[in-house]
Amino acid sequence: MNDSSAATPARLLPTLQSPADVKALSAAQLPLLAEEIRRELIAVTSRNGGHIGPNLGVVELTIALHRIFNTPEDQLVFDVAHQGYVHKLLTGRGGDFFQNLRQTGGASGFLARGESLHDAFGAGHAGTALSAALGMATARDLRGTAEHVIAICGDAAFTCGITLEALNNVVSSTKRLIVILNDNEWSIAKNVGAMANYLNRLSTNPTYNKLHHDVEAFFTSFPAGVEMNRFYQKWKRETKDFFVESSLFEKFGLRYLGPVDGHNFEALAKNLEFAKHCDVPVLVHVLTKKGKGLDAALIHPEKFHGASPFNPLTGESTKSTSVSVVPNYQDVLGQALARFALADTKIVGVTAAMPSGTGLSHLAKAAPQQFFDVGIAEEHAVLFAAGMATKGIKPVCAIYSTFLQRAYDQIIHDVALQNLPVTFCLDRAGLSPNDGPTHHGLFDLAYLRCVPNATVMQPKDEDELVDMLHTSLQLGSPAFLRYPRGAGVGVKLKSQPVKLPIGQAEVLRQGSNIMLWALGPMVQEALALAQRLETEENLSVGVVNARFVKPLDRTLLLSQAACIPLLVTMEDHAVTGGFGSAVLETLQEANCTTAVERIGWPDKFIEHGSNVTVLREAHGLGADAIYRRVLDRWRHLRAETVAADA
Amino acid sequence: MNDSSAATPARLLPTLQSPADVKALSAAQLPLLAEEIRRELIAVTSRNGGHIGPNLGVVELTIALHRIFNTPEDQLVFDVAHQGYVHKLLTGRGGDFFQNLRQTGGASGFLARGESLHDAFGAGHAGTALSAALGMATARDLRGTAEHVIAICGDAAFTCGITLEALNNVVSSTKRLIVILNDNEWSIAKNVGAMANYLNRLSTNPTYNKLHHDVEAFFTSFPAGVEMNRFYQKWKRETKDFFVESSLFEKFGLRYLGPVDGHNFEALAKNLEFAKHCDVPVLVHVLTKKGKGLDAALIHPEKFHGASPFNPLTGESTKSTSVSVVPNYQDVLGQALARFALADTKIVGVTAAMPSGTGLSHLAKAAPQQFFDVGIAEEHAVLFAAGMATKGIKPVCAIYSTFLQRAYDQIIHDVALQNLPVTFCLDRAGLSPNDGPTHHGLFDLAYLRCVPNATVMQPKDEDELVDMLHTSLQLGSPAFLRYPRGAGVGVKLKSQPVKLPIGQAEVLRQGSNIMLWALGPMVQEALALAQRLETEENLSVGVVNARFVKPLDRTLLLSQAACIPLLVTMEDHAVTGGFGSAVLETLQEANCTTAVERIGWPDKFIEHGSNVTVLREAHGLGADAIYRRVLDRWRHLRAETVAADA
Repeated sequence: MNDSSAATPARLLPTLQSPADVKALSAAQLPLLAEEIRRELIAVTSRNGGHIGPNLGVVELTIALHRIFNTPEDQLVFDVAHQGYVHKLLTGRGGDFFQNLRQTGGASGFLARGESLHDAFGAGHAGTALSAALGMATARDLRGTAEHVIAICGDAAFTCGITLEALNNVVSSTKRLIVILNDNEWSIAKNVGAMANYLNRLSTNPTYNKLHHDVEAFFTSFPAGVEMNRFYQKWKRETKDFFVESSLFEKFGLRYLGPVDGHNFEALAKNLEFAKHCDVPVLVHVLTKKGKGLDAALIHPEKFHGASPFNPLTGESTKSTSVSVVPNYQDVLGQALARFALADTKIVGVTAAMPSGTGLSHLAKAAPQQFFDVGIAEEHAVLFAAGMATKGIKPVCAIYSTFLQRAYDQIIHDVALQNLPVTFCLDRAGLSPNDGPTHHGLFDLAYLRCVPNATVMQPKDEDELVDMLHTSLQLGSPAFLRYPRGAGVGVKLKSQPVKLPIGQAEVLRQGSNIMLWALGPMVQEALALAQRLETEENLSVGVVNARFVKPLDRTLLLSQAACIPLLVTMEDHAVTGGFGSAVLETLQEANCTTAVERIGWPDKFIEHGSNVTVLREAHGLGADAIYRRVLDRWRHLRAETVAADA
Repeated sequence: MNDSSAATPARLLPTLQSPADVKALSAAQLPLLAEEIRRELIAVTSRNGGHIGPNLGVVELTIALHRIFNTPEDQLVFDVAHQGYVHKLLTGRGGDFFQNLRQTGGASGFLARGESLHDAFGAGHAGTALSAALGMATARDLRGTAEHVIAICGDAAFTCGITLEALNNVVSSTKRLIVILNDNEWSIAKNVGAMANYLNRLSTNPTYNKLHHDVEAFFTSFPAGVEMNRFYQKWKRETKDFFVESSLFEKFGLRYLGPVDGHNFEALAKNLEFAKHCDVPVLVHVLTKKGKGLDAALIHPEKFHGASPFNPLTGESTKSTSVSVVPNYQDVLGQALARFALADTKIVGVTAAMPSGTGLSHLAKAAPQQFFDVGIAEEHAVLFAAGMATKGIKPVCAIYSTFLQRAYDQIIHDVALQNLPVTFCLDRAGLSPNDGPTHHGLFDLAYLRCVPNATVMQPKDEDELVDMLHTSLQLGSPAFLRYPRGAGVGVKLKSQPVKLPIGQAEVLRQGSNIMLWALGPMVQEALALAQRLETEENLSVGVVNARFVKPLDRTLLLSQAACIPLLVTMEDHAVTGGFGSAVLETLQEANCTTAVERIGWPDKFIEHGSNVTVLREAHGLGADAIYRRVLDRWRHLRAETVAADA
């Protein structure tokens, strides 16, 4: 299909303005539409990157949903919403808007209520759809309206506690809810755990689902009055629950339909139509192929879950090689962890369905016994690590900053309160520009600074990241290590890591007028800023690599505050409650009133955009804006001092 | 039994120094020991309050566990750990230490690693045991040791996402783990949802569990060669999974044993012994009676889940009546919500297994259709509310401050990012003195202040709580309302609530030397402090009831900062990242360097204690300590000013 794609121009897709147009198509046109959509998905994601694999799998399913149901009256709630590209194309968001997917001004990579009335619920984190849909269905029942609510969940969502909590509540909340289980056997990585095994057996054993019909047919084939039949009636009476509940979902009170071939329009239509008229909550088990229509994605499903730009013919990454010679933080972390784990078998890695994204795949390869992927189950990941830590194991828990929000109680109640030595690697701290607000890790310092016993740090570059990992593993108490997505600074990696003194910052440049206290990637920005202020304004500007947010280097800070008129904090984090606030608190506790300027992300959700630079500039954090702000503050301060002296 | 309790002195219990002594007892002595333990549990909790119901149910089970397993080598991981009193009594923590349960210097109301080597894992929040135990079992496997790990979970734990996430991971993590399902049909309240129904059927239908044996016996009773048998063989082959998996737990790969009578020593011993030698993970389903041995607790299981002091004969609360004429925040909130909900059917209440604790039982009674208890499932509670909010329903989600930590990602990713009008009632913000560090709500301001779109507030008294609830319901965006456990101030409740202007503080007392910015219950403290500073030191001290932490009353704060030399913040919250930090940030943003003193809880976990006053005094927050601190700061500031003027 790839080869023909450039040759055949899309005909149907450009004519679809709304779901009504999808309904108007003939059955014969549907495969053609599916092919056009796949071509569009591949064309756009090969250029912009994006969740190509999951979307290629749901082309027929999404078309079928829009033919049976009426959005926006009916609510389609897509889990994670990165299965939502096809839905976007069918709800008036094609053309240029979709061509600019995940870019500034283009379509979001997820669904978003602000983007379309057809998006009933936004999501960038997995496992939320069933729960949100249950809320909607209950609201409908309360209000007495008649619309349908359909949750479309990946099989991986069922490894996630929220989905399972919701599953437990379905029958007590509503009588009418449709759950689509889109089963492609993958989350980001291959699914793990008992649920995945179970679904696999459910899909591959044809007798499973229709068993009780067979049993009944068999027994009732005996003439009435035969001894056999009497026994059967008794047995049936006693074991009724058993037969009614052939699947796990039926134990939770949902009617089970399936498995259904998710690429067969007829089968989908028949089952969805039946589900639409059910008077009990129903789960339709749909089997799909992640990456269908792109050979490379079928062969490497994890790589093509959320892919960087790639060559649509070969599947090869098209990232420019000049960028990729600088290793990214993820690979540096994963390789270092693998090395440490080989030298000390007590070190293990734990992740929640993000082995590649976090770089822990390096550990999985080097020391598989010491690697644990628990599925989309962040709470369990942290508690599991806590349990291991009580027994002398040294767990390193690598989870994206925003996903770790899911395990906040476990961090406080299980790890920190018991002061257990778990090392947390908060990947994607700072912006994840193409993904947008669900993935920007801008709150972790605020939510971790208040946790007693926590040590919180961020390295200025990838070599210091290795030092910090090494330091954390010897700390004996909870350590939190945050670092950004993507390429490091490009520094040379030392052959042996260094143990950093806890709570000690690093002075990179002396200065007497202004001291810039910078954290993580802002250290590079601070160095450039200091140079420019010196060159253009003849100011003496120093730079400190803060390293530790908790404990902060109080001694250094206070000694500088005593003689330097202006301190500036720079962080890749929300300005509310972050690193700058830690500086304010420390100064206040010492009754010190030295002037401070805090630079960080404003108190709002930051949209997606083409890259970090574009977003920084849009929110007053571009290099020029920071330069002007610091200079203004400095001039204002000088004017005040002159006035006071006069 | 209650009547005889005073008459028969304990004989066995005082002789038990360790679990070895429990093992040395004869089978005939065990019922006697059980009776002595129940007497002790009732005697102590009737005086101190505590989780009497759950503990009365696990007396025989805990004795049996200590006879079969060897702690601390073997690990008993009690879920929530409020089932742990019996375990305490059997592991050398009886006598005075237990007599002072939940009091300063006495035993914690939960298990705690710091309290005993026999406590493998501490917990005050439900649902963590299986996950932590799985970590321990995996650590054991990695290290190649042989000890047993036993998770003891209440049935309510299986409504909690963490437990279900762990359940999904059991078989992929270890081959050896024992799970005790202590099934008493209750969490704090009566269990809800499909899992509870399922367990109930599993318990009450005797054929359920042994079905496949029966089936096999039946079929194989036919002579070989009979047509019937051939059919059976084929059928059996095709449906093998089906028969092997008679229970839901077996679908997750655990062997199921039970149900076992949890008050029968012989049955317990037999099953635990079998479980001990299993070479696959095993779940033992034990049926117990919550409150067994105390008639009042059997009749009112929710009331006696975690009870205040009571009369051991009648079960009547013995709280002094002078205290109880002041209504508590919980009742005021619940009654107001019920009233509002009756007037507006779009208003609903959602809680996660805490209907009585939060006062939402008033709503449940007044408008049952508008009340939702989703079980121990905080994540689902918040998402479910978010889903309802998209459809014009106005959900009020009442969850204890520390339990809401479980739903932090849902607050950010689902509610705030989509700016949905959900009202959160953070009950037990501040100290929950007898419960201790797992229940002290001291972090919520820090973790909520950074959330964009959030409005965060705390009332000075119970009447203002009603105003804030009323205000939140009209806000149209996420509102967070925090308030303490227990009695209000005793003010008269207005007949009609008032809508408060968002972000506006209230000046309660003017002053020109010092301005106290107080939040919640600290407002009363501030008024007394101001009076004392004026009387004893002739200072002019004002008091502001801050009301809103976000948005803070910037205008008022800056106008005061311009003319008052010292601002003092007072909050019932951790001093790191809390209300005081919001004040520092606001002043810094306005380039204002007015002196600030921040008063709040220090950066450590606060232990349990007899009452709030004792704990405040232990951590520098007693009235005298605050008085001295403010006065010292004032004098220091005056001295500085004089020096500068000279």
